[in-house]
Amino acid sequence: VRDRHGHFLIEGVRFVSAAVEMSARIVGLIFSPRLLTHPWGQKLARKLRQAGVPSLRLSPGEYRTFSTAESPQGIAAIVRQRWDSCDLATAGYNSCWVCLQGIRSPGNLGNIFRTCQAAGATGAILLGSESDPYDPACVRASMSYLLTSALVRTGVEEFRDWPGRRDYRVIGAAPTARRDYRSVSYRGAVTLMLGSERKGLSATQLAFCDELVRIPMQAGMDSLNVAVAVGVLLYEAFNQRYPLRLKKNRR
Amino acid sequence: VRDRHGHFLIEGVRFVSAAVEMSARIVGLIFSPRLLTHPWGQKLARKLRQAGVPSLRLSPGEYRTFSTAESPQGIAAIVRQRWDSCDLATAGYNSCWVCLQGIRSPGNLGNIFRTCQAAGATGAILLGSESDPYDPACVRASMSYLLTSALVRTGVEEFRDWPGRRDYRVIGAAPTARRDYRSVSYRGAVTLMLGSERKGLSATQLAFCDELVRIPMQAGMDSLNVAVAVGVLLYEAFNQRYPLRLKKNRR
Repeated sequence: VRDRHGHFLIEGVRFVSAAVEMSARIVGLIFSPRLLTHPWGQKLARKLRQAGVPSLRLSPGEYRTFSTAESPQGIAAIVRQRWDSCDLATAGYNSCWVCLQGIRSPGNLGNIFRTCQAAGATGAILLGSESDPYDPACVRASMSYLLTSALVRTGVEEFRDWPGRRDYRVIGAAPTARRDYRSVSYRGAVTLMLGSERKGLSATQLAFCDELVRIPMQAGMDSLNVAVAVGVLLYEAFNQRYPLRLKKNRR
Repeated sequence: VRDRHGHFLIEGVRFVSAAVEMSARIVGLIFSPRLLTHPWGQKLARKLRQAGVPSLRLSPGEYRTFSTAESPQGIAAIVRQRWDSCDLATAGYNSCWVCLQGIRSPGNLGNIFRTCQAAGATGAILLGSESDPYDPACVRASMSYLLTSALVRTGVEEFRDWPGRRDYRVIGAAPTARRDYRSVSYRGAVTLMLGSERKGLSATQLAFCDELVRIPMQAGMDSLNVAVAVGVLLYEAFNQRYPLRLKKNRR
């Protein structure tokens, strides 16, 4: 249903507020006046209704049955999904994309998005249609990523034929790679390529990679959680781009 | 029930095999001959039964109802919980512990354990009793950590009074800290201190810290998932201890 209608649900004052701020297309408001005690939340609901957004008023009990939040704040919005195409990903100075395929856990996917946003990745590219970024568990874990940051979803063929791809160095993460992740440069326009939780990079993804790197691990261990791996790689990229030394000199 | 009996459940050929290898105290075997098609798994089950471990034989249907695995392999074991005390954490050369309090998501906790093991942390210390390392979701996410690596559980008072604590530099992670995490040294005996998903370091934890560091983030973001934060910090510690340059010279 979510995909057919091209909408998704966000919940809580913080996220609805981010949606308004980012001019997301809000097509519906769901609120429960008695639960919505947050003054800024009340103001948001008023603003949205005045702007003519269709709204659904629920009792606290009704709201709680549909909410997946631990402590429901009584405000949610139905937002139009964004589907950016490859063309968004024009290689800019130091742009750094994270390209994913086959991530099955929505919690992992959301966590990767959150990490991308924190570490300053330019955006995320989803190859193929196996992952659902608008699963509520992903939306929740990603914090406000889906409202604020770039998300490209593309078919494998489309990505292959996209001329802009060649402007990036594509660095894939694989436990069997020979090169240590610290031994390559992440300066300039790069795309980090990460595979699925179980199987790692697919053959399709491997064919896109210019270099493969591994994160060293203790004997007997062959993998990290994929979101942790993204964190380690993105912070290495961040650290190479913004070495600590420069920061000290600027003081 | 799990805590009263001091046992926990592990599932799958890989984990039962690790338990046998690590001489964990296996108090029961649960298996389903028709599901257990893995030859090494069959051998394990035979070995355990010959060693006199009480066993429960289930039909595939029965096994599936109790299993939490996605594709059940038909073998599980009930293992005695380990509760190491602080005294295990004697400061050795370059030892690096990760001390946690208030982590609520068993998936996050397991993911932290897995990261500790991959990045070569000496072990994990749980302060207080809020986190349950033997929750099945934690056991699953932690891979074989609970069977192979050091886990200390200690009360806050006990930790405070433990003389060995002073042999470590305690480095806490807080988004409000002034120092960049790359600007401190992780050489020598250190303990990394991380707080809960929602509230970060508790006042108790802060009082134990010698230094506070932050992981830099893009404007508007104030936190990473706690397991990702552990990954970023542990790999910084790892990288300082084993700089890439040395490795190159060794070739």
